[in-house]
Amino acid sequence: MSAVTYEGQGVFSVGPATVVPPGPGEVRLEVAYCGVCGTDLHIAHGAMDERIGGPRVIGHEMSGTVAEVGPDVDGLRPGDPVVVRPLDTREVPAADRAHSHVGRNLRFIGIDSPGALQASWTVPAFTVHRVPDGLDLELAAFAEPLAVACHDVRRGEVASGELVLVIGGGPIGTLIALVARARGARVLLVEVDAGRRALAHALELTAVEPGDELDAAIEAESGGAGADVVFEVSGSAAGILAATRHAAIRGRVVVVAIFPEPKPVALFDLFWKELDVRGARVYEPEDFEAALSLLAARSLGIERLLTAVEPIERVPEVFAELLAGREAMKILVDCRA
Amino acid sequence: MSAVTYEGQGVFSVGPATVVPPGPGEVRLEVAYCGVCGTDLHIAHGAMDERIGGPRVIGHEMSGTVAEVGPDVDGLRPGDPVVVRPLDTREVPAADRAHSHVGRNLRFIGIDSPGALQASWTVPAFTVHRVPDGLDLELAAFAEPLAVACHDVRRGEVASGELVLVIGGGPIGTLIALVARARGARVLLVEVDAGRRALAHALELTAVEPGDELDAAIEAESGGAGADVVFEVSGSAAGILAATRHAAIRGRVVVVAIFPEPKPVALFDLFWKELDVRGARVYEPEDFEAALSLLAARSLGIERLLTAVEPIERVPEVFAELLAGREAMKILVDCRA
Repeated sequence: MSAVTYEGQGVFSVGPATVVPPGPGEVRLEVAYCGVCGTDLHIAHGAMDERIGGPRVIGHEMSGTVAEVGPDVDGLRPGDPVVVRPLDTREVPAADRAHSHVGRNLRFIGIDSPGALQASWTVPAFTVHRVPDGLDLELAAFAEPLAVACHDVRRGEVASGELVLVIGGGPIGTLIALVARARGARVLLVEVDAGRRALAHALELTAVEPGDELDAAIEAESGGAGADVVFEVSGSAAGILAATRHAAIRGRVVVVAIFPEPKPVALFDLFWKELDVRGARVYEPEDFEAALSLLAARSLGIERLLTAVEPIERVPEVFAELLAGREAMKILVDCRA
Repeated sequence: MSAVTYEGQGVFSVGPATVVPPGPGEVRLEVAYCGVCGTDLHIAHGAMDERIGGPRVIGHEMSGTVAEVGPDVDGLRPGDPVVVRPLDTREVPAADRAHSHVGRNLRFIGIDSPGALQASWTVPAFTVHRVPDGLDLELAAFAEPLAVACHDVRRGEVASGELVLVIGGGPIGTLIALVARARGARVLLVEVDAGRRALAHALELTAVEPGDELDAAIEAESGGAGADVVFEVSGSAAGILAATRHAAIRGRVVVVAIFPEPKPVALFDLFWKELDVRGARVYEPEDFEAALSLLAARSLGIERLLTAVEPIERVPEVFAELLAGREAMKILVDCRA
C-alpha cells in the first residue's frame, strides 16, 4: 500500500499510503491505475508550487474499486469498479451553480487536495462514476482525459458531416480527433512531430504537417470554405493564429490549450467571418458518462495511446525521465503494488 | 442635384449627380439624408484606397424616397420612404448563402460600388427597407448604424435582466447600450472621453471611466460575478483585455470594433471562465427591421446623437474638419439641395 508524494520542484517520494476512513458522503477507493497528465508534469516542473502549497499526493486520472462506503452514500458498494471526476464543487457559490465545473471556488482534487497516486484514496461520493460492465480498469483510467475531449467536442457543437481541424496531436488533441470522428465529423489533425503523426495514422486519422500540407488539406476537404470547427490544443502562438485563419465563415474555434499569458489573436478574422471562439475547461458529469460509454464500446482504439504501465515505486524515476524528455503519449501507474 | 466624389487621400469634390435609370430588379432613389460613418472617415484618411480603386461616391447611412422603379420589382412605388441595407449579396457563393451578410464575395455598397452621398442613387431593390409610417427621414437615416447595434446585441444573445458592459462610447457603442437597455438589460458603458460620457448620461445611461470606477461599478452591479455580455467597441488593446477580464463565468464577449492587426487576448480568461468570444459584422435584414421599429417607437432618444445636419455642398469641408479633430457623434448630410 504505497503513496507518491510530490515534495516540490521535480522531487517525488514513495511512502506508505494513509488509509482515510470515509466520512459522511464519502467513499474510500482502492486505486488500480492512475495516468500521468500534462498538468502533473507542469506540477513536477515546480510551476504550480504556490497553488500546491507543500508536499502533496497528486494524480487525477484514475480507475479503481470501492473499498469502503461512508454514511449517507447511496448506490455504491464495496467492489464496484469506478472512476473519479476530480472536481470538488462543494464550496462553489450559488451564483455559479449552473456551471459549477468552472465555479469560482472550485477545488481540483489531485491539485488542491490529495490525489490518486496512492493505493487508498478517499473522495466525495458525488465525484464517483461507475465503470460499465465489461470495461477493464486499465482502459477505464483513460476516462478522465477522454471526458476532457468529450467536453471540448460538446463545447464545439460538432455535428455529423462537419469538417473539424485539430491543431496539436498530443494526448488531448488525439482524443478530441477520435471523439469528433465518433460524432460523425471529418477530421484533420495537424501536428509538428512525426512520431505523433504516425500514431495518428495508426488510428486511421488524417494527420498533416503545418504549412502547405495543412493549407492544401483544408482546401481539398472544404472547397476553400475552411473548417467548421477548429480545436486549438497546441498552446502555441502559431496555433491560435492558424485556428482563426482556417475557420470557415461563422465557424467555431475551441480554445483547449492553456495559454498562461495573453497571445496575439487575429481579431479581424473574428469580425470578418463572425467567428465564435470558445474556451473549454475540464468537464461536466455527462462528459464522464459519454467517455465511459465510448471506452466500453472499444471502437476508438484508445489503447494505442498507452505508452507504458509503470509500478508505483518507479514514479519518481518516471517523472525524472519525462522531465528529461522521454517521449510518451500516456503512462499509467499501477497503484496496487 | 449634387453628388460628392471621394477623389483620394482626404480630397472630396462636389459635382452634378448622375441619374442612373433603374434596370431590372433595381430602384432609383432620391436621397434625403446620408450619415457620415467611421468607415467613411477611414476612407477619407486614404486607408482604404486600394479597395476603393479610384474616384467614387461613398456613403451608406441613408434615408430617402423611391423615385423610379425598374422592371421586375414588386412592393415598391414612387414616393415610398425607404432606407437601404448596403450589402450586395448577388455574387455570394451558394456555400455562404446562410450567412450571405458575411459572404466571401460580398460587396459593400458605398465602398465597393457607388454610395449615397448624392441626390440620386440607383440600388438593387432587395436592399431596400420601407420606412414605417410616422418616422421622419432625418431619424430614419440612423437605421443603418442602429441595425449594426441590433445585430451586435443579437449576436450577444442579450437577455432581459442581464448585466451588459459596453467598452467604448462612440456612436456604435452608445447605440449598442441603448438597444441592450431596450432589450431589458442593465447596461454599463465605459468611455475615456468626458464629453461622450456626458452624452451617455443625458441618455440616462450609466457611463463610467476605465479603471477603478469601472471595477467598482461591475462589482456593485454583479456582486463580483462580472458582466453577462461584454461588447468591445473601443478597438483598443486595453479594451480587448478588459473585455475578457470583466466577463462572468460562461459570459459572452462580442468583438464589434475592427482590429486590423492581431492583438493580445487573455486566452486564459477564455479557458478559465469558459467564455464565448464572438465576432459581429454588419447586419442581416431582420436587424434593419428591428432598427426601424425602434426608431419608429421613438423611445431610445437617438435624436440626441445628432451633432449637425450639413448641406451636401459642404461635405469636402466637413471631412476636412473631422480629419482635423472636430468632435461629432453623428453628422447627417442633407442630399436634397
